[in-house]
Amino acid sequence: MADVTGAVTFPKGFKAAGVRAGLKEQGLDMALIVSDVPAVAAGVFTTNVVKAAPVLLSKSRVPSDKVSAVIVNSGNANACTGEQGMADAVAMAEQTAQGLGISAEAVLVASTGIIGKRMPMDKITSGIADAVRSLSADGGADAARAIMTTDTVPKEAVAEIVIGDIKVRIGGIAKGAGMICPNVATMLTFITTDAAITPDALQGCLAKSAEVSFNCLTVDGDTSTNDSVIMLANGLAGNDPIAIGSEHVAKFQEGLDGVTTSLAQQIAADGEGATKNVTITVDGAKTYDECRQIAKTIANSPLVKTAMFGCDPNWGRILAAAGRAGVDFDPAAVKLSMGDITLVLAGEPIAFSEDEAHEYLTNRDILIRLKVGDGGSSSTVWTCDFSYDYVKINAEYHT
Amino acid sequence: MADVTGAVTFPKGFKAAGVRAGLKEQGLDMALIVSDVPAVAAGVFTTNVVKAAPVLLSKSRVPSDKVSAVIVNSGNANACTGEQGMADAVAMAEQTAQGLGISAEAVLVASTGIIGKRMPMDKITSGIADAVRSLSADGGADAARAIMTTDTVPKEAVAEIVIGDIKVRIGGIAKGAGMICPNVATMLTFITTDAAITPDALQGCLAKSAEVSFNCLTVDGDTSTNDSVIMLANGLAGNDPIAIGSEHVAKFQEGLDGVTTSLAQQIAADGEGATKNVTITVDGAKTYDECRQIAKTIANSPLVKTAMFGCDPNWGRILAAAGRAGVDFDPAAVKLSMGDITLVLAGEPIAFSEDEAHEYLTNRDILIRLKVGDGGSSSTVWTCDFSYDYVKINAEYHT
Repeated sequence: MADVTGAVTFPKGFKAAGVRAGLKEQGLDMALIVSDVPAVAAGVFTTNVVKAAPVLLSKSRVPSDKVSAVIVNSGNANACTGEQGMADAVAMAEQTAQGLGISAEAVLVASTGIIGKRMPMDKITSGIADAVRSLSADGGADAARAIMTTDTVPKEAVAEIVIGDIKVRIGGIAKGAGMICPNVATMLTFITTDAAITPDALQGCLAKSAEVSFNCLTVDGDTSTNDSVIMLANGLAGNDPIAIGSEHVAKFQEGLDGVTTSLAQQIAADGEGATKNVTITVDGAKTYDECRQIAKTIANSPLVKTAMFGCDPNWGRILAAAGRAGVDFDPAAVKLSMGDITLVLAGEPIAFSEDEAHEYLTNRDILIRLKVGDGGSSSTVWTCDFSYDYVKINAEYHT
Repeated sequence: MADVTGAVTFPKGFKAAGVRAGLKEQGLDMALIVSDVPAVAAGVFTTNVVKAAPVLLSKSRVPSDKVSAVIVNSGNANACTGEQGMADAVAMAEQTAQGLGISAEAVLVASTGIIGKRMPMDKITSGIADAVRSLSADGGADAARAIMTTDTVPKEAVAEIVIGDIKVRIGGIAKGAGMICPNVATMLTFITTDAAITPDALQGCLAKSAEVSFNCLTVDGDTSTNDSVIMLANGLAGNDPIAIGSEHVAKFQEGLDGVTTSLAQQIAADGEGATKNVTITVDGAKTYDECRQIAKTIANSPLVKTAMFGCDPNWGRILAAAGRAGVDFDPAAVKLSMGDITLVLAGEPIAFSEDEAHEYLTNRDILIRLKVGDGGSSSTVWTCDFSYDYVKINAEYHT
């Protein structure tokens, strides 16, 4: 899945565009993704109590079997903008629908950027017109660029699976660098597929997939007002429709998980100020949720993250973070390793070469593995370290 | 309560000492606090699953009415040290008891410092002997210095209250800079009083007091393996003993709350790399716990903390943190102010002078107030900002 470009136009029957509307200081800032035929749509949205207007709008329109387009802007999150914000989100859908000659309910909307500022609707309006004109089967890569904010690279991933004898394609793009960037909210993901699948099955697969990918990702523990994962399935591959309980669900799920997991890892690797990709696996608690809770507590600990930045094999901070995760375990049963180096066995530090451990931590990719007992569960989360640049990026930004 | 020194020897009948045993690179590193008569003792200890040996030992000895001494060392946490660690903690109590001519069960033990290293018992043994020799009614200030690790200043607070016609004194010392400093664990607090009070009443008051002080304090969200709050009450003031349900409990609680709140604020102000003291009050959720949960989520948000460091009135980050605290509230009812400046009303930003807000945030003491509804509850937490120095202190330390 490396070196993909144009992921959302990889499945049959999708066009996309990325254009500059002038919302950001520079670069593309509006994306449009369109299916040639009405598509099944599903979505997973932020759990934050404070939800942006486009999130409320799009959430109300999925699951569905009549969605044809997603209009997205970066540069303004349209969050904490009250009734005006909702009117603006509705207008974005209407203008897009008008340009495409479809109904307004067939359009989903997503925004990312500054919170609490009214959308500059004049720029949005001309941006939408431009995006409609620019739609192309080669537009996927531009769309991936147009949704970026503090991201340093676009994130794309694709998968090809076989359902029956039919080749089915899945393609996804994502943006997100801090969970909330400098007032520039959000993780956004858009996924297309030419699979034929029922709305309920698509919603179920997408929710499951988000659980093992985006929900295993943490840069700084913040969840934004705009986080959205939106997926369209247009059925043009021609496979027998996948329904809940049908034999092909598992294969589709696997393909989708591959795309979302790749995107989540790309986001973690592009974390604000990140110098390292840190993968944390916790084994042996009683349930998957318990393992993930411990892994996330370690991943979010500023003390662990600064130790990673400093290439310090500071196992004490990892154990202390695990211990406060709210999960009961026997500290005397704990095993901790970094890469192939075991640091803690039966709850106590063992003799290890500090030079070798330090040397290991100078790598870009770091694996931390913590076993907390004999439970059969396991969970892996992805994060990054905490550097001077994280503070710099987030302190020097001014509202 | 400003400019207090010798707080733990302020109540009648307490002696203390702070000596150098050579556990840290420099400075005093062992403290001893002794009551002239057996005292009532209470304790509140870390909720971390991973607990240091001295925590397990002291926790098993309170509440009690037969404790005479607390022996404390900095420089080594005696955590993740297995059976040997417990034997060493027991030996510390025994050696102290022998020096004082009391029973070993009358001694509590606390440690803070490096995790996972065996206690250097030869140094500890001579340190204990030295501390016993140095005990004095003026030793409180030395004890406050001897428990410091990355703290830049000692923390002390006292209160004087009247129970019946009798003056009663309370004095406390604390250490803590990060919740876990660079492998140097912990918040430790030791409080003495000459009040006469039953063990159950003292344990109850101390637990309540910790709830509104230390549990409202967060530097980086980490809870250490060694956190301990230990209190001795020797009754030498001569008041009628305070029991659960007696009329004087409330007055004693108030005095104690004053001491613990002052210590908690001193700890927050001395947070690693802190350039600002940030006080966050959340009003209007349904319960105190809900208010505190929102306040703590804001206080622990790296994005909010870096914004404070950058003097950026970034209300969007504060609202977004509040929204993910796991507490339900109506975003359209939210009011947010910094000092006297209102930034958000009815969920939307209002016109405010950004220069004035920025100017306000250049102060050392910052007040943030968030109203989330019409519930009658309120909670205040104390934290600090997140600076380059936090990363520096925590990344450059090497295990």
